[in-house]
Amino acid sequence: MPESTASESESASDGGTAPAPFTADDYRARMARAAESAAAAGLAGVLVAPGPDLVYLTGYQPTAITERLTVLVIAPGQDPVLVVPTLEAPDAEKAAGAAALSLRDWTDGKDPYAVTAPLLDVSGRFGVSDNAWAMHLLGLQQALPGTSYVSLTEALPMLRAVKDAHELARVEAAGAAADRAYGEILKVRFAGRKETDVAADLAALLMRFGHSQVDFTVVGSGPNGANPHHEAGDRTIEPGDMVVLDFGGLKHGYGSDTTRTVHVGAPTDEERRVHDLVREAQQAGFEAVRTGAACQDVDRAARKVITDAGYGEYFIHRTGHGIGVTTHEPPYMIEGEARPIVPGMCFSIEPGVYLPGRFGVRIEDIVTLTDAGTGRRFNNTPHEMAIVE
Amino acid sequence: MPESTASESESASDGGTAPAPFTADDYRARMARAAESAAAAGLAGVLVAPGPDLVYLTGYQPTAITERLTVLVIAPGQDPVLVVPTLEAPDAEKAAGAAALSLRDWTDGKDPYAVTAPLLDVSGRFGVSDNAWAMHLLGLQQALPGTSYVSLTEALPMLRAVKDAHELARVEAAGAAADRAYGEILKVRFAGRKETDVAADLAALLMRFGHSQVDFTVVGSGPNGANPHHEAGDRTIEPGDMVVLDFGGLKHGYGSDTTRTVHVGAPTDEERRVHDLVREAQQAGFEAVRTGAACQDVDRAARKVITDAGYGEYFIHRTGHGIGVTTHEPPYMIEGEARPIVPGMCFSIEPGVYLPGRFGVRIEDIVTLTDAGTGRRFNNTPHEMAIVE
Repeated sequence: MPESTASESESASDGGTAPAPFTADDYRARMARAAESAAAAGLAGVLVAPGPDLVYLTGYQPTAITERLTVLVIAPGQDPVLVVPTLEAPDAEKAAGAAALSLRDWTDGKDPYAVTAPLLDVSGRFGVSDNAWAMHLLGLQQALPGTSYVSLTEALPMLRAVKDAHELARVEAAGAAADRAYGEILKVRFAGRKETDVAADLAALLMRFGHSQVDFTVVGSGPNGANPHHEAGDRTIEPGDMVVLDFGGLKHGYGSDTTRTVHVGAPTDEERRVHDLVREAQQAGFEAVRTGAACQDVDRAARKVITDAGYGEYFIHRTGHGIGVTTHEPPYMIEGEARPIVPGMCFSIEPGVYLPGRFGVRIEDIVTLTDAGTGRRFNNTPHEMAIVE
Repeated sequence: MPESTASESESASDGGTAPAPFTADDYRARMARAAESAAAAGLAGVLVAPGPDLVYLTGYQPTAITERLTVLVIAPGQDPVLVVPTLEAPDAEKAAGAAALSLRDWTDGKDPYAVTAPLLDVSGRFGVSDNAWAMHLLGLQQALPGTSYVSLTEALPMLRAVKDAHELARVEAAGAAADRAYGEILKVRFAGRKETDVAADLAALLMRFGHSQVDFTVVGSGPNGANPHHEAGDRTIEPGDMVVLDFGGLKHGYGSDTTRTVHVGAPTDEERRVHDLVREAQQAGFEAVRTGAACQDVDRAARKVITDAGYGEYFIHRTGHGIGVTTHEPPYMIEGEARPIVPGMCFSIEPGVYLPGRFGVRIEDIVTLTDAGTGRRFNNTPHEMAIVE
C-alpha cells in the first residue's frame, strides 16, 4: 500500500528519515497537469480508478478494491470530482489530496453510473485507467452511449512519468535502500541454500532499510538465471553457479528495482566474458540518456553492444521500464518508443544475456535524466561481478 | 492467494487437515457448467480474467496481475482456451485445471487481442469478468467491433454462487477457524491497547487456525464502531467501549467472515438494548433463509426488526453478501435482489446499528441453505454480548 499513513509517519531505525508528506497543493498541481494533458490529447477528460493513478493524483488508496465504483473525474475547465461509495467517503476525506477535489458519494442500491454521468461530456472521448474494472467501463458505456474511451496508457502514457523534486528524492532514497540491501546480501551464504532462502534474506533487508512493501526478489541460480521471468524456487544454489539477484519494492511510496549478477566461487572465462558484455551494454544504455534522446535510443544503445558481440538472440526483453508509485510503468525503453526522455523521468536500464539451460546475466540501475542533460544513477553499487560463498 | 500449493499441502498443527486438492475433473465440470450457463443466457461465451473467477474455473492464479493479457475463453461447443503471455505459460501449465483446457501464448511485442480474436464469434455477446482490465476490454472492442459485452456479475451472477459438497466443507472449515479465533480474542486485554493491536491479535489467530490469508480485521471501538467501513486505527480502547470485531480471510482457498460486538466492562442499558435489537434482527434474517425465499427476503426480515424498533435510519448497509473463493461476492442480500436462495449458496447475514459519534453494533454469521430447506450457520459462537477486559 503506497503512501499509507503508517509508512509515512514511521522513521524506522535503519530506514532513514521519512520525507515530508505530499500536500493538497502537490495533488492539485498533478490534477491540473492531468487536465491540461487530457485537453492537449483531445480528450474530454480522464477517469481514474483506484490504483497507482489515483494514489499519484489524490493520495487516496481505498482499503480494498471492490465492485463498488470509485472514480476520479478530471476534465479541463471543471474541478476534479471523486465519486465514492458513501461507506468509503470518510476514508476518502482523509486523503491528502481531498482538499483539492470534491466528493460525490453514492449509497448501496443506487446506480453509480447515473451519479457519474452528469460529470461527463455526453459525446466526449475519455482516458480511463488501464486497470479500471471492465464492469465499470461497461456501466459508463451503457449510461452514456455517445462517449468513447481509450486506456490511459495509450492516451496519456506519460501522466506519471516526469517526477518533481520531492518525488525524485523518494526514488533516490528507495534506490539507496536497495543498494544497502545488496551490500548486505553479499555477506550471506549462497552455496547449499535454496534460492527461496536468499530471496527471503533480500526481502528482510529491503524492509530493514525502510521499504514498506517488497514487490519482487528474484534469485535465479545457474540455469534458472537464464529464464528472465524466474522468481526464486526450490533449487539449491551450488558452487560454480552464476546467480541473478533482482529485487525491489516501495519505500515511502516510491519504487526501487536493481539487479546484480554474482557468482559462487570463481567464474569460467565464458561467464566472465558474458558478464563484462552485459556491463558494457548497461553502460552504453546509460550513456544514451541525454537531452534529445528518445526512449528507444537507450534500448538501441544497450542492444547494439550485445548484438555486435554475437549474443543478440539471447537478449530477449526490452531494456527498461519506468518506476514511480509502482515498480513497473511507462516510459518503456523499447524499440518503437520514439517519445523523448524528459528531465525527471525515472526508469530502469537492465540489459541481459540468457543462455538457455546454462546461466543468465542481468545488470540493472534506476536512472533519471537531470536538468543538466545527462543521466544520473540511483543505484550505485559496483557493476563488477561479486564473488560470493 | 487462494488455492496456493503451499496452503493446500500444508497441514498446520492447529489448522486442521488439508482437504484433497480440486482435480482437473472438478475444473472441467465447472467450465462445462459455465459454458451451459452462458448458452442459456444467450451469450456466445465468457471471457475470464485473472482473479477469483479464473481461480474457480481453472485453479490458475498468475504470480502477479500485470498489464499483459491473460484471459480464459469459454464458449459453448468449443474447448476452453487460456490465452497467456509466453513468459507465464510455464506457470499456467502447472495449474490443476490446465489438463482441462488448451493454452495459447503470445510474446511481448505481439498484439494479444489479435491472438484472442479468432477464438471469439465476431458478432457475439460475451460475459466478461467484472475485474478484467478496462484496457483489455477496449482492446477486444477495437479488434472485434461487432462483439458486445456484459459484466459476468450482471450476466451470470450466480456462476460461483452454488457450492458443491467439497466447497461447502471448506467454507465450513473456514468458519470454524474464525470461531476459534473469536474464542481466543475474548481472552486478550482490550482496555488500554490500540485497535490495531487487537487487530494484529485477530490476524495472528486466523493464521494460527489455518488461514493462508487475512482479508480484514475490523476493530471498531466506541465511536469508531459507528463507521461500518472503519478498519482499525490508532484509537486506544477504553473501559466502557463497545467494540465491533469483524474479521475473515481465506482458509484452503475459501472464505470466512464473522462479526461479534463485545463490550469493555459493563454496558449501559441503551447499549444492551441496541445489541439485543441487532441480535434479534440477525436471528430474523437467519429464519428467513428457507426454500422459496428470495435474497431480498433476508434483508427485509432483518431490516424490519430494526425499523420497527425505530432504528431504521441507523442500519445503513445491505444485510449480506455471498462468500466462496472470495470473502465478498454474489449473491447479495439486498432489497431488489429477487433471485431465489438455492441450496449450496453461502452468504453473510450481518445487520447493524450505527449511532454516529457514539457506538455501533453488528452481528454476522455465514449461512447456507441446506437441501432440507432451512438455514445452517457456519459460525456458531454465542450472539450474546461478551464482556471483555
